[in-house]
Amino acid sequence: MSRERADAGSAVAGWTEPPAQLMRNGERPVDEEEPRWLSSIEQQAWRAHLAAHKLLEHRLDRDLQTFGLSVNDYEILVNLSESPGHRMRMSDLADATIQSRSRLSHQISRMEAAGLVARETCADDRRGTFAVLTEHGWATIQKVAPHHVASVRQHFIDLLTDDQLRELETAYAPVVSHLKSLR
Amino acid sequence: MSRERADAGSAVAGWTEPPAQLMRNGERPVDEEEPRWLSSIEQQAWRAHLAAHKLLEHRLDRDLQTFGLSVNDYEILVNLSESPGHRMRMSDLADATIQSRSRLSHQISRMEAAGLVARETCADDRRGTFAVLTEHGWATIQKVAPHHVASVRQHFIDLLTDDQLRELETAYAPVVSHLKSLR
Repeated sequence: MSRERADAGSAVAGWTEPPAQLMRNGERPVDEEEPRWLSSIEQQAWRAHLAAHKLLEHRLDRDLQTFGLSVNDYEILVNLSESPGHRMRMSDLADATIQSRSRLSHQISRMEAAGLVARETCADDRRGTFAVLTEHGWATIQKVAPHHVASVRQHFIDLLTDDQLRELETAYAPVVSHLKSLR
Repeated sequence: MSRERADAGSAVAGWTEPPAQLMRNGERPVDEEEPRWLSSIEQQAWRAHLAAHKLLEHRLDRDLQTFGLSVNDYEILVNLSESPGHRMRMSDLADATIQSRSRLSHQISRMEAAGLVARETCADDRRGTFAVLTEHGWATIQKVAPHHVASVRQHFIDLLTDDQLRELETAYAPVVSHLKSLR
């Protein structure tokens, strides 16, 4: 199979347009209804959402690396520091950070090696293992949080108006609600 | 060091508030100006952005797993399918997908093993290696794209109005522009 290629334009990742001029020359996907490809504004909004998040995560990760942390480490530290006794059941921590138990387990092992958290099993509680913030983990989140909030301001929050922040929260609320209902 | 804990509220990941009542009882971070913690609306918008993206990525990843792909695989396939000759220099592909060369290299190795892409070195071009879409990769993106766009619609686009999509794109534009200028 060989196909003519049209011009590719800029190589920005688009995930939802017809891939590579799929629909040219009357070609259609076999055994499918016509897909509802995104309109121009839908495409722009979707790309902006993806690009903003990906670039932002990359930047925040770099800023946190100064302190030997990833954004995922930071999220774990915040969750534990906000929980009674600085501890959470592993299954609850996996839910709170939206990841699988096995992926969380690998991450906790790395953070354990760095002395930030410890695992505890409770003899009275058969519902599993807990992750607990260590003194070093607690000192770390206290030290890093002011720097992290400064990064979040510099690269995101302070670039938007309060009205835009409100609109963003309003727009995302049904998305978050819908996706949580699926989990 | 031992501290009293106040109530923790719901264990939603917040990355930018004072961690665990840090500022209570007149405690302050040492050697720091007072951090500019996020206001309520800023906090809500930031959490909504994080939650929406994380939940959405999780869901799209699950939907793509039906076809043996991750969202990262899909992004690579789209980039290559949109490029002349279905090929991109590895360094350009790393830039386009906002990741390090080494991380991309691992991913391309996995996709090579799955028969989706191939590596090529060009004797005439000393600027490095190319990633090229295989026939199987090209057939895969054509087959999967209609399903992926349906997922994106169901879990994101169709939950927002056109006005909200426009506002989102407008709000994110300066963020994307700022972050690209740093790279």
